[in-house]
Amino acid sequence: MAKLLLGKEVNTALNWKTTERVNSLKAAGITPVLAIVRVGAREDDLYYERGAEKRCAQVGIEVRKVTFETGADTEQLTAAVKALSADPAVHGVLILRPLPDGIDERAVCEALSPENDVDGVTTASSASVYQGRGPGFAPCTACSVMEILKHYGIALRSRRAVVVGRSLVIGKPVAMMLLGADATVTVCHSRSGNLPELCRGADIVVASAGRAKMLTGEYFSPGQTVIDVGINTDSEGNLCGDVDTAAAERIVDAITPVPGGVGSVTTSVLAAHVAEAAERLSGGADHAMRRVSAGVKK
Amino acid sequence: MAKLLLGKEVNTALNWKTTERVNSLKAAGITPVLAIVRVGAREDDLYYERGAEKRCAQVGIEVRKVTFETGADTEQLTAAVKALSADPAVHGVLILRPLPDGIDERAVCEALSPENDVDGVTTASSASVYQGRGPGFAPCTACSVMEILKHYGIALRSRRAVVVGRSLVIGKPVAMMLLGADATVTVCHSRSGNLPELCRGADIVVASAGRAKMLTGEYFSPGQTVIDVGINTDSEGNLCGDVDTAAAERIVDAITPVPGGVGSVTTSVLAAHVAEAAERLSGGADHAMRRVSAGVKK
Repeated sequence: MAKLLLGKEVNTALNWKTTERVNSLKAAGITPVLAIVRVGAREDDLYYERGAEKRCAQVGIEVRKVTFETGADTEQLTAAVKALSADPAVHGVLILRPLPDGIDERAVCEALSPENDVDGVTTASSASVYQGRGPGFAPCTACSVMEILKHYGIALRSRRAVVVGRSLVIGKPVAMMLLGADATVTVCHSRSGNLPELCRGADIVVASAGRAKMLTGEYFSPGQTVIDVGINTDSEGNLCGDVDTAAAERIVDAITPVPGGVGSVTTSVLAAHVAEAAERLSGGADHAMRRVSAGVKK
Repeated sequence: MAKLLLGKEVNTALNWKTTERVNSLKAAGITPVLAIVRVGAREDDLYYERGAEKRCAQVGIEVRKVTFETGADTEQLTAAVKALSADPAVHGVLILRPLPDGIDERAVCEALSPENDVDGVTTASSASVYQGRGPGFAPCTACSVMEILKHYGIALRSRRAVVVGRSLVIGKPVAMMLLGADATVTVCHSRSGNLPELCRGADIVVASAGRAKMLTGEYFSPGQTVIDVGINTDSEGNLCGDVDTAAAERIVDAITPVPGGVGSVTTSVLAAHVAEAAERLSGGADHAMRRVSAGVKK
């Protein structure tokens, strides 16, 4: 049976590091702050907001909730996001999406400065991910894939990775980051032929197809690491991924469960991004520490 | 023997279309203008500039040369590029690169507005290529690869493409555009293992490794289309690509020669991009025609 790559183990390690970073920032007089922008009270949004709040509290990040009635318009939201970007006390901004119909979501996202864009929703963040340089962040879910691979020491250099899915939230950014880690990367999608064969030939399979249990046993071969990004509901109403886990875990070396895999790591990545944003905006944690020392000398 | 995919055939078809677009723009009172920014008088730059001028003249695009002494600094160049971006009579701007040492090339490029960025050197253009939407352009060389595939009717949908090289000028943008055309895309690079095997498994191989004749016969299999982006000099001083063409053309279906392949198409793409920029900036050729009609009615 395959080894399970557990989100909770990644979280423990990642949050420990984030807590250290937050403590260094606080020692330098900077309390990292995440602003969460929410419109209305969709159950999904409230669930994610609660998770983000809990995670931030755990590592010492302050959360500022900025909520709007369902009737809020593009102008109000854009103005609020601009104000948050301009506020030096705010380091990260998370806009809970999708925004209600009638709101120009793109305009609201673009109002965010890339320095505060901890979930990678701006065009500038996209460019940073693509170019491998720049001020933005990759989307938290895509980063969660990379954190799991890193935490479990899965070698990427010179290895073959297949990413199923080409979205801007997962497929493309994961492909770019795997490429940055020197993997040979294949991006597949709904129009790809021979998907099972392509997946069987990979060392690492990242499944983000968005279809419940689409990757059945024939997609896998021994020795593989499988990262399942899907979150779906199966015919019996149970949460499941894009991989038929029961079939895959009899074949592959290692696999993330759903739930308890990629999805459970996103708020830890979000918190790490807020710490990172605070460090960058203050000129780095070391710089912040030096500022404190300078202050003490005075 | 493989069919040769000739740049000159692509050029004939592409330039005919561009000439039509330019004529429509002129009928609407708009003369498309390309500004070429050059520092010093490097032989490479002069060669490309002459090629671009000739091509533009052929299709009816006006060229404005903006030249600087070798001693020009970042500030001067940035100011010039900003002024060109702000000039409504200029539609495309080409900055001949690399700029001399000591100049912040990134700063100069970023001074260009993406609407005028006909060779895709800005971060905003990168983002457009990555996201598949936006105001910028892909680099001309990357677009030349796509134009050749399009001109010769090479099917891309559901087919396997391998791109050797991951640069922002060729590898990554070609990968993004092939993905946009529904190909299954693998990006390989210097750290990839089993490169010959990976290439043999593809329907389309795009070679942009930057090493003379690196892709020898063992990289190819029957039925393939090979696009050779390399421009190198072999041990006898002759121009050659990244592919050992003599070996490859005995195996594959179709291949671009070097010289006379991808490189010969870039100025045609450049001209097409200038026409495109002029159309977009004027609200589209149709819109421009409508403006003329409206004018006539008055």
